[in-house]
Amino acid sequence: MTGPEIEKLIQLLAKLPGLGPRSARRAALDLLKKREAVLRPLAEALTVAADRIKTCGNCGNLDTVDPCSICADARRDGAALCVVEEVADLWAIERSGAFRGRYHVLGGVLSALDGVGPEDLNIANLIARAAAPEVSEVILATNATVEGQTTSHYVMDRLAGTQVKVTRLAHGLPVGGELDYLDDGTLTAALRARRAV
Amino acid sequence: MTGPEIEKLIQLLAKLPGLGPRSARRAALDLLKKREAVLRPLAEALTVAADRIKTCGNCGNLDTVDPCSICADARRDGAALCVVEEVADLWAIERSGAFRGRYHVLGGVLSALDGVGPEDLNIANLIARAAAPEVSEVILATNATVEGQTTSHYVMDRLAGTQVKVTRLAHGLPVGGELDYLDDGTLTAALRARRAV
Repeated sequence: MTGPEIEKLIQLLAKLPGLGPRSARRAALDLLKKREAVLRPLAEALTVAADRIKTCGNCGNLDTVDPCSICADARRDGAALCVVEEVADLWAIERSGAFRGRYHVLGGVLSALDGVGPEDLNIANLIARAAAPEVSEVILATNATVEGQTTSHYVMDRLAGTQVKVTRLAHGLPVGGELDYLDDGTLTAALRARRAV
Repeated sequence: MTGPEIEKLIQLLAKLPGLGPRSARRAALDLLKKREAVLRPLAEALTVAADRIKTCGNCGNLDTVDPCSICADARRDGAALCVVEEVADLWAIERSGAFRGRYHVLGGVLSALDGVGPEDLNIANLIARAAAPEVSEVILATNATVEGQTTSHYVMDRLAGTQVKVTRLAHGLPVGGELDYLDDGTLTAALRARRAV
């Protein structure tokens, strides 16, 4: 006997990653309890997001301006282009504060299984950007998954023969990681890439 | 470098039960990808919920009408009043389809630790409703937790001396439950409440 309005809300909340039908019900009730503190501000934030946030035509980042604030920031190093799969990865690198260049968001990975080919990703635009005279390095920062590495290899092939230097993120022990808990693949990679101290 | 609009959205999403800061980020990105399919409908559903859903002044249920559609439904049995802690519990009983009477939502449980006393719950109204001539049974359907049972006992005491019959849900094996996986308390309750077959 939940009304159609609440039912609709629960169905939509259940589409969020991390929420199932059960937790969506809990979330809906919780929102209705915190009507002015959370429910209404969330409705407004979502409307603002739907109306104002757009994909940067240059790099694929999400922002209220296009080109995005990273592409438009003259203080960022235009010589290095960091290629990531998703905007979430761009955010992760930004949080680390370790990179001051620009980004390129592919918008996914190549996947024969899911029928995702090069033309479905933001690759043609990347090749064009990498050809610009100020770009000297393309850093491949895709995930260390099979699809991520396949995509990196494909981009590498496409950039072969150009003047740009192509690099990729190092593989190895995560900082704070314990050997005993690491998977074999990471241990093997860390051993192979060992460095003199 | 996530803009303030996205940051605000993430912060609000992180307040949903079941979502933390990390899953809120994922949810925000996912919403921005499914802009027309999920983001905008969700924003609208939340606005509708904030504007139109209210608490039933009679039983404490949530609905777009007050009294709620259960209280207003003349086909429901006015003789039985089922007392639950939260609207979620009312929904759970409605889903079972096992009850055709009316409800009373307490809006929480008594808790000395959290400073929740009888005056903080919807109890005075329950006592008044139970005194109505058509009500012959009050079913205590609070959770089988210490607080839930304490609250039930309190309500029971308040109803002592009235004509109304007070019952509570049976405790025992969940249907499909295996003895080996049950806690001792449930097993003890099931043994004590054993019935001749």
